Amino acid sequence: MIPPLANDTFLRALRREPVPHVPVWLMRQAGRYLPEYNVVRRKAGSFMGLATSPSLAAEVTLQPLARYPLDAAILFSDILTVPDAMGLGLTFAEGEGPRFARTVSSDADVARLAVPPMDALRYVFDACAEIKRGLHGRVPLIGFAGSPFTLACYMIEGRGGSDFATVRRMAAARPDLLARIVDVNARAVSAYLAGQVAAGVDAVMLFDTWGGLLPWEAYARFSLAPMRAILSTLPPALPTIAFTKGGAQWLDALAGCGASCIGLDWTADLAAARARVGDRVALQGNLDPLVLTTDDRTVETAVRATLAAAGPAPGYVFNLGHGIVPDTSPELVDVLVRTVHAASAR
Amino acid sequence: MIPPLANDTFLRALRREPVPHVPVWLMRQAGRYLPEYNVVRRKAGSFMGLATSPSLAAEVTLQPLARYPLDAAILFSDILTVPDAMGLGLTFAEGEGPRFARTVSSDADVARLAVPPMDALRYVFDACAEIKRGLHGRVPLIGFAGSPFTLACYMIEGRGGSDFATVRRMAAARPDLLARIVDVNARAVSAYLAGQVAAGVDAVMLFDTWGGLLPWEAYARFSLAPMRAILSTLPPALPTIAFTKGGAQWLDALAGCGASCIGLDWTADLAAARARVGDRVALQGNLDPLVLTTDDRTVETAVRATLAAAGPAPGYVFNLGHGIVPDTSPELVDVLVRTVHAASAR
Repeated sequence: MIPPLANDTFLRALRREPVPHVPVWLMRQAGRYLPEYNVVRRKAGSFMGLATSPSLAAEVTLQPLARYPLDAAILFSDILTVPDAMGLGLTFAEGEGPRFARTVSSDADVARLAVPPMDALRYVFDACAEIKRGLHGRVPLIGFAGSPFTLACYMIEGRGGSDFATVRRMAAARPDLLARIVDVNARAVSAYLAGQVAAGVDAVMLFDTWGGLLPWEAYARFSLAPMRAILSTLPPALPTIAFTKGGAQWLDALAGCGASCIGLDWTADLAAARARVGDRVALQGNLDPLVLTTDDRTVETAVRATLAAAGPAPGYVFNLGHGIVPDTSPELVDVLVRTVHAASAR
Repeated sequence: MIPPLANDTFLRALRREPVPHVPVWLMRQAGRYLPEYNVVRRKAGSFMGLATSPSLAAEVTLQPLARYPLDAAILFSDILTVPDAMGLGLTFAEGEGPRFARTVSSDADVARLAVPPMDALRYVFDACAEIKRGLHGRVPLIGFAGSPFTLACYMIEGRGGSDFATVRRMAAARPDLLARIVDVNARAVSAYLAGQVAAGVDAVMLFDTWGGLLPWEAYARFSLAPMRAILSTLPPALPTIAFTKGGAQWLDALAGCGASCIGLDWTADLAAARARVGDRVALQGNLDPLVLTTDDRTVETAVRATLAAAGPAPGYVFNLGHGIVPDTSPELVDVLVRTVHAASAR
């Protein structure tokens, strides 16, 4: 049996309860900057080989916890597992990012789109259960999904891109079509997160990587509203985090989306965000990930500045403002985590 | 002699005075979407060949004015003329964007950096004078420069890039070095804009394309402060526009930078921005440029929505939220300009 959590500071911070130190975890804390990750990645043969193996996914999820006194684990997976389960054929070309074999752009494509059977994502739920056993109550496990709009970006373009022109054009010229895609995605993500919760995750996070590319009205309709719809289907007591890259300008609206916590990217003014949201939600963020490619002293100074900006109020989780970059120094991650704990200890 | 301006609605809007219709111009209104531009561009042989020829630069500046009833002309040039004049060796590889032969990254590189002699930019001032003659008082001419930080991005990386990792790393680890680069740039841009003003431009705009990639404190120090310094050196009566892509989250600070008008990118909530800045500054923006790749009806609807968001207060200039994209339809630009004028006529 799995014992109760020995360290629940992360969950308490999401609930805006007092904590003995500021909890810290890092987006992409399991990944290419760790030599031990690359060993498993090579063994798996491909990124999807790794992501679809519950035992390998669990192994890499736990790797950063063995190195650093992090306050949470996050499921190792990818946001695109959901559209892959819809039959779009996901692959990761070496060094090129994700590609879908089929895109969704015509009326006929959209008409064919449906919530996939959750059995197609069983490997993710199995990984969650295996990670929970491996953690043995040390720290909470975070489940996650891509936001319906961010999934739509990849489904429509077939790959990542710097400006997602096709998606922005659809938002303006065929809002009915985009609305149908994000609606299917929202229902799929709701079912997907319910499966992760059933498998034992302690909190969930929605990653809205590309909502920040939209005009405000389109963001409210195609990105924020479907996130709100998903959050409303989750168990009320489940702590939740919503993150829109570039979303700080819409913080008031985000703070009302139903998430316990709003993740801020590295450009956001954390002190101003704290003043604006008051005690409505917890905040998470937002050190520039590039700081982890500099030196000890720069990391220490930047961590202390971030903690100072967050202020003394409860309801704060330390994190980067975006995912760890591959040329991050593993030693500097250690400096970061230890500085957060030492500088925030009550 | 050049007669007084026949149409000064643009300048009046920047001064927040009443206007008979909302003035409109478009970022990159002279450019690759116009067949007549491509003819001149081929004749010039290279982008820099075009930019450094006052007569050809004047010719392409005036092309969109011949097609559309725009309310302002903007100098055809590039923000990187200033670091080119510093001796960094600017070229534009076909379809690849700007490249510098020499980058600025070491202490020694920075020590060598200096404000270039303005004679090296004489071709720009000559183009301004030639355009003013060609306009013959029809509409005002806008001069422009890149912001000191945005210039630094290209000078440090040597080219465009999606995340400018080297610059963000320098902002964290070597703020002293970045401060010296933007200081030289600020003094160079001040002299450069003074030259454009002497050559007859009626207003100037600072393009801060990459300030939005910085953490808040770094933005305030390395992007906003040098823009404020430049603006303080310009004639007090000169109307000015400051544009930071991704800057809507910092609108309060931007509105106090000394510019007459703040340009908003396409993600900004124009109605919220208007409510926030009140009568402190004029606003310019912010239709998604991708809308000009759709259809008549979508353009008309989107233009009317933008005008509605801007509200009835004076101090508004219609524009896109970023530059025109190359696959823009010239016919849709006509629809846009005519809709702005018709829908806003008093």
